Amino acid sequence: MAKKFDFEPLFSKDTPADARATGKRGKYDFAVAYPDPESVPIDGLWQALRDAIQKEGKGMAIYPPPQGHVGMRELLVEKFTEDRGMKVAKEDIVLGNGSGQGITLLCQILVNQGDVVLTEDNVYVGTLRTLRRFKADVRGIPTDDNGIIPEELEALLKQLTAEGKTVKFIYTIPTFQNPMGSVLPLERRKQLLQIAYKYNVPIMEDDCYVDLAYEGDVPPAIHSLDDRGQVMYVGSVSKIIAPGVRLGWAVGPQSVVGRLLNVKLDGGANELAAMAINLYLRREMDSHISEICAILREKRDAMLSALGEYFPPSCKWTKPKGGLFIWLTLPEGVDASAFREKALDADVGYMPGVNFSPSGQAKNSLRLCFGFNTPDEIKEGIRRLAEVFEREGAFKQASGSAPARKRSVR
Amino acid sequence: MAKKFDFEPLFSKDTPADARATGKRGKYDFAVAYPDPESVPIDGLWQALRDAIQKEGKGMAIYPPPQGHVGMRELLVEKFTEDRGMKVAKEDIVLGNGSGQGITLLCQILVNQGDVVLTEDNVYVGTLRTLRRFKADVRGIPTDDNGIIPEELEALLKQLTAEGKTVKFIYTIPTFQNPMGSVLPLERRKQLLQIAYKYNVPIMEDDCYVDLAYEGDVPPAIHSLDDRGQVMYVGSVSKIIAPGVRLGWAVGPQSVVGRLLNVKLDGGANELAAMAINLYLRREMDSHISEICAILREKRDAMLSALGEYFPPSCKWTKPKGGLFIWLTLPEGVDASAFREKALDADVGYMPGVNFSPSGQAKNSLRLCFGFNTPDEIKEGIRRLAEVFEREGAFKQASGSAPARKRSVR
Repeated sequence: MAKKFDFEPLFSKDTPADARATGKRGKYDFAVAYPDPESVPIDGLWQALRDAIQKEGKGMAIYPPPQGHVGMRELLVEKFTEDRGMKVAKEDIVLGNGSGQGITLLCQILVNQGDVVLTEDNVYVGTLRTLRRFKADVRGIPTDDNGIIPEELEALLKQLTAEGKTVKFIYTIPTFQNPMGSVLPLERRKQLLQIAYKYNVPIMEDDCYVDLAYEGDVPPAIHSLDDRGQVMYVGSVSKIIAPGVRLGWAVGPQSVVGRLLNVKLDGGANELAAMAINLYLRREMDSHISEICAILREKRDAMLSALGEYFPPSCKWTKPKGGLFIWLTLPEGVDASAFREKALDADVGYMPGVNFSPSGQAKNSLRLCFGFNTPDEIKEGIRRLAEVFEREGAFKQASGSAPARKRSVR
Repeated sequence: MAKKFDFEPLFSKDTPADARATGKRGKYDFAVAYPDPESVPIDGLWQALRDAIQKEGKGMAIYPPPQGHVGMRELLVEKFTEDRGMKVAKEDIVLGNGSGQGITLLCQILVNQGDVVLTEDNVYVGTLRTLRRFKADVRGIPTDDNGIIPEELEALLKQLTAEGKTVKFIYTIPTFQNPMGSVLPLERRKQLLQIAYKYNVPIMEDDCYVDLAYEGDVPPAIHSLDDRGQVMYVGSVSKIIAPGVRLGWAVGPQSVVGRLLNVKLDGGANELAAMAINLYLRREMDSHISEICAILREKRDAMLSALGEYFPPSCKWTKPKGGLFIWLTLPEGVDASAFREKALDADVGYMPGVNFSPSGQAKNSLRLCFGFNTPDEIKEGIRRLAEVFEREGAFKQASGSAPARKRSVR
């Protein structure tokens, strides 16, 4: 047999080694941010594609506009105006593979090795991974039940400025935050923006979950409050249609859009998907969102009720008004990641809190996603999880544990 | 009005500035590599999607496998085996946005600033742009009517080795090359591989045009001749279905796949498109490819015949056996890029040859793509182009022009 060629010495010094996940999943899968699988609007998407393809199918013979399908971007302009109070033109929008591609490309054009980027502590693990991939120095901003604490952000920026650090941007999910489920109130959004102005730091607002609102009003986007072009904005249809369609957007001022297009060397966003989604959303967006919100509200309630039934008072958890996540905190000193395999043995998946923390805190917390399973499955999964935790001693404060941090997550 | 925020000082030092193209196109658009717009299999794709979505639509609620749709990769394994003589497993394939995303990510994991990459001189402008984006030192390998000249490749590698340069890989489009239309014969493929073995340099084989074969047999893929895992391989459905569906693949040994997935931070390839294309190709690939080849053969013949009718003997052009391109060479000393605007004024688009050349040669050549227009339009477009060239003096050798290079392109 021929000697195999060794690629290892050739790999670029800037790219990380192979670190593929094993991908083990539980039947009761509270680990990953899936929406409700029964709600994928299969018939509506197919009908929309049938009609769109008859009308504009030949257009697929040419490469899509670099910024993506025009009709879809026009629809987004309307949606951003009506739902989020934003003023943008279709030229300010770049379509891509989910919000993930937008976030990655924005990081790519902004982050040099060692640059500081601020995020909520804790924050979406995908963004954290991407920032680390670009060798950013990610610092966590302390949060409470209402998201980023403005005073803490200002203190952090003051300190970093004194240290002479370059802060490239503040990444935030202000609405139904991943993983903590919080909503940043309007007053804090304004304060956050004023602080960004004062320290001359742009904001990257991730609004991925905004349509999954189960009670009360949602504050306007931070982007809508900004009159200086200092806020970048990303989102996707992963939560209102399905992650598999891989359609998202990045919004920014022209200088950012131009840079972004120069690193987005993939020939444009998928026109087939954009065509179908554009027409489907024009026909059925409001009714479909109402429908999935009703389903997800029921699932959230099922999980909250099961937590109340099976989990002891030594644990705390959030009661989110939207989104997909409940943030569960075990007693002080308990290591939530220690039971992951045991939980998977009982067919239950969850995500340890420490995975979401730039500072490596939140060791005794974990994230539960209620989107994927049925309410009955959720109840059974939470029952099994409580059983594993009880058996493994996770409900009791660890003896000899370190004293609580001044500001624990919640 | 508020002072606008200035992003310029924040951009990463590794990313190029905004350089958006103006996008001016002619009615007779021989500039861009579009396939035949009438051949986009609209009904077939729609029917396939209708059936696929009923069967596997719910699967879109979860994120796609990082390497992309399983069924599509299984189909590719069959196609590679039957058509290209390759032995690969579905785990060796990563789906992405066209072949462009694969090429970009492979460059990203392999190229450090200043690394040498070898390509045909001349070569696909998209790859050239991507390599320059990663600051590769791109060197052109001299070619003739049969593609890369093995002796020239070996001489170049010998010289670069003597200079102590790191050569990261050889990028080649061996079949229906873009822009020159050549096919590398089997014997040269074997020689190329032996040289790659001798100098320990991997090959990136771009097989984007292989299905557009209008006469004679196509030699097997270089990948199929390699038993050391030294050849990476990319391709797409852009030419057999449509660029707008944005589906392509990168194939490589596991070490390359693992690295690639670590920089492909976009949540996976489009499942909606992959689902439809997978089922469509399983149903109609062979008949559809026969059909588009018949149409494109007619277009090629129309362009060759119009060139014969309207262009003088002072010009030379290739007679490709497949693909989408004719490479036209004006008399020595003429600058083919000088007439681009004038041609667009006559509604004709073409791509100056110098755009494709790593060494900046081929100044008196240009690329004509015959895929987009109808045969009648092609005839009229070539007539207009000849009129512009005649009027502008492009058919006469420039007075005082430099003597011909020892090895001009053809």
